Order: sequence, then structure tokens, then C-alpha cells
Amino acid sequence: MALAYGGIEAGGTKWVCAVGTGPDDVRALVTFPTTTPDETVARAVAFFAEHDIAALGIGSFGPVDLKHGRITTTPKPGWANTDVAGAFDVPVAFDTDVNAAAVGEGRWGAARGLDTFCYVTVGTGIGGGVVSGGRLVHGLVHPELGHLAIPHDRTRDPFDGSCPFHGDCLEGLASGTALQHRWGLPAEELTDPGAWALEAEYLAYAVVNIAFAVSPQCVILGGGVMKEPTLLPLVRARTLELLAGYVAGPEVVLPALGDRAGVLGAIELARLQSSNP
Amino acid sequence: MALAYGGIEAGGTKWVCAVGTGPDDVRALVTFPTTTPDETVARAVAFFAEHDIAALGIGSFGPVDLKHGRITTTPKPGWANTDVAGAFDVPVAFDTDVNAAAVGEGRWGAARGLDTFCYVTVGTGIGGGVVSGGRLVHGLVHPELGHLAIPHDRTRDPFDGSCPFHGDCLEGLASGTALQHRWGLPAEELTDPGAWALEAEYLAYAVVNIAFAVSPQCVILGGGVMKEPTLLPLVRARTLELLAGYVAGPEVVLPALGDRAGVLGAIELARLQSSNP
Repeated sequence: MALAYGGIEAGGTKWVCAVGTGPDDVRALVTFPTTTPDETVARAVAFFAEHDIAALGIGSFGPVDLKHGRITTTPKPGWANTDVAGAFDVPVAFDTDVNAAAVGEGRWGAARGLDTFCYVTVGTGIGGGVVSGGRLVHGLVHPELGHLAIPHDRTRDPFDGSCPFHGDCLEGLASGTALQHRWGLPAEELTDPGAWALEAEYLAYAVVNIAFAVSPQCVILGGGVMKEPTLLPLVRARTLELLAGYVAGPEVVLPALGDRAGVLGAIELARLQSSNP
Repeated sequence: MALAYGGIEAGGTKWVCAVGTGPDDVRALVTFPTTTPDETVARAVAFFAEHDIAALGIGSFGPVDLKHGRITTTPKPGWANTDVAGAFDVPVAFDTDVNAAAVGEGRWGAARGLDTFCYVTVGTGIGGGVVSGGRLVHGLVHPELGHLAIPHDRTRDPFDGSCPFHGDCLEGLASGTALQHRWGLPAEELTDPGAWALEAEYLAYAVVNIAFAVSPQCVILGGGVMKEPTLLPLVRARTLELLAGYVAGPEVVLPALGDRAGVLGAIELARLQSSNP
């Protein structure tokens, strides 16, 4: 059997660990909740100890220190300054969860064949990974698309925002957490068309700012909030209005790999690092 | 004498044409006003006909069609859909004026040795070029940092914005044109500290959004508006406040090549294309 790679989608709510080479060759997969750092990392170590892998890719919630494979300033209790990569005794490729998902969608999913695109997850929080010219954007730290500053019309939406760092940044206005706080309902129970129009407004501003910053061919919007079926067409329409014909805008699409983009992208990160050590 | 390259900074107000290999080897330089497309391009063609150049780099105002070397939807009268690159009979490297300036600052200026940085010019309009992982960001079109959507508190600043496409985008709120319209004075005559604090607020939002989108090590702020000496320290301070310690922010600096960043970067674009055709 061909060489296999390990992948971890290390999320703030759950970890997904898989062994394989791609969507059609997942040889083992396990999901468990994110509890304490020690317990969670130990479960992943135990899972991979049972499999023969050439390398491990980890896509982690962040912000992260890419060089040292650590989670840094997360507000998640107990997880600030956690060493993740150091716990494994195989070569590790470490990146953000959303960069991993972007890589997965680029290899097998909605961005296949494109060289400049973004993956944005709209869930409990909002995060995004960016591929430019075929390569992940890293830089000083890594993109943090969830914290983009966007227009907030307080006469239309008096909600102050839920981000503990920035108040009414994108995540503070448009994450699942923000929806719960503003409307008193989780996203999956929200039926008011005005609520979804407002959500589309904020996500369209995000797409527009991403377009003006990195000019992607495609923006993939994933995460639990995007499961609302009316949302994607609203975001597309409002994005075009906001661009106002100044430049061509990106395709705005849902992920093709669904909930597996992150863990499959982590496997691809491991393969890429093994090919170009 | 070593091979020389040609460079054009094709701006909306003036064109700068130079022959040489870098800041210490500029063998000829001419500046002339941007008039009609035919007349302006003909002056550049005539200038380079007198010099032996291996290739020509052009950094143009935009938006541009990079593939075909054309200016596209500019509101500048007479210039929409102008073929620029096609007028020259040497190999041409064509990019935006601000991408060229970014390349110049990366090779010889404020971003020397860095691999991820941005050059933003704050003048009559606002534009920006982005280098990520050592390479210019292009994508579907190219970055248009001047049109980022940013928060606009109308109780503090009731000005509607001056961008003909987007109203109160970054350029609409913070360009020299916006300053002139809001205050009735050009930037160089503006002395009210409140006006400069407001300008710093908008530019800091731009830096923050650039930081969250591409995580640059450095953001270079150039252009005429940045000649106000109180502005850079205000932008730096406000950027740190807006980031709120979530991630490390970029250095925010002035260009080291001054007004020659664009034309020198164009020369470097020509050299790069000749080395990697």
C-alpha cells in the first residue's frame, strides 16, 4: 500500500484526525471533543501511534506561531501558549486550520486549478486562509480574516459586537456567536429574512475587502452559519453591488469537501512538506 | 557598460521614465505631465528610442489588465481602455504603479530583506501593491487597497466620501481628494490636529485590514499626504490600539526611495522578467 500521511484538524470545538492520502483514500478517521490541551493532544498521539505515517499535517485554531507549532493568544480557556507540533515524533507540517482547509479545497475541492483563492469559515468564530500564486500566505504571522474591520451602521444594527479583542470586527458582527448574542437564537433557528440580509451585508464586506487586498479568483465560504440556504445568494448579490463594477469580483462558493476540508488539507500539507522539505 | 533597463512610472498626473539598473545607476530620467494617451505614450516611446535597453518595466495607474498591458476602468477622462505596453518594441514587464513601487522598495528601500510587505500611496487617490512570500500578489486582477471598506463614524465625520465608485471607501475618506473636499483645503495647507487624527484613524484601519488579510512584516506609506510630519506617528499609535494585542502588527514606515520608488521598481520589474522570462 502506498505511503500514508496523517492529518489533524485541530479545532476549538473538536479535533478530527485522519490517515490516508486524499478524499478517496481515508484509511482511518476519528473525531473527539477539544477538552484540555494535555488530554486532547494525548488522544491524537495515541491515534497516530496505531498507524504508519510518513509525516503529519496539523491545521490548528489560532492565532498560532507557525515556526514553533504553537497556539498563542487564543481566548479559549487553558489553550493559550500550547505546544501542539512538539508532541509528535514524525515530521510535522503545522499551519492554521483555515490555511489547511484552503489547501484541501485547492487540491481536491472548490478551488481546484486556481492559484489565488481564500477559504473563510463562518462558524462560532470566523477565520480565513489565503493562497496567492499557488502558495499559502503567511507573512509576519498569518491572515486573520475574521478580524477585518468593516462598516457597521449602528442605526441599522445597534449590536456592539461580540469580539473580545475588537468588538465589532467581522467576527464580532457576523460569527455564530454574534448571531446568538444579537438575536438570542442560534444560527440554525434564525428565520428572520432581515437577520440574514444583515449577515449577508457583513459577509459581502468581507468578500469585498478580501478582493481588494489579494484579488482572489474564488472565495469559499464554509462553516456552520453558511448552512442557511438563503445566505450564499444574498452574499453574492451584495458583493456585486458593493464592488460597483470597479473591478471583477471573485466567485463566491461553498466548500466542495464539506466538513472534511480541514483534515484533508492537513494531509495535503504533510505530503507537500515531505515533497519539499 | 552593463546592460540597462527602462522603467516607466505611468501615473495619472505625470509619467517618469528612466534608464539604468538601480538607484546608483540612473543614466537618464525624464518627467512629463500625463496629457492624452496618444501624446503621453508617444513621449515615452521617443525617450526610449534614444537609449539602448534590454527590456522595459511599466508601473501604471489602474485598474489595469496585466495580461494585455492595458489600463481598464479608470475614471480618468480619455484613459479608459488604453493600450500602454503595446506601444514599445522591446520586451515589456507590465504591472500596477504601486506593485512597481513595492518591488523597488523591496529591492533597495524600506522593505529590503523582507518577503511579505505592502506599499500604499496616499495621494490624489490611494493605491497599494502587495508582495507575499517574495512575489507580487496578482490573482484575478490585482490588489486595489485604496478601495477597502472601513468603518466610517458619521457622527464624527459626516463627509459622504469622494470615491465615484464606492463613496466612503478608504480612498473616498482618506485620499488627498477627500481631504480637499471635506476641509476645503489641500493636504499641504491642513493644520487642524483633529483633521490629521481623523486621517490617521482611516489609515490605521487600512493598515489593520491589510495586516489581517496578508500579515505583512512592513507597510510602507508613501504619497503626498504622508508628507505631513505628524501623520506617521499617529497612524502607528492608532494601528496598535486597533489591533488590541491580538496579533503582532507590521512596521509602518515611509518609503526609503521617496518619489523614485515607482520608476526604480519598474526598472527592477524589467530586470526580473529578463532573468525569468
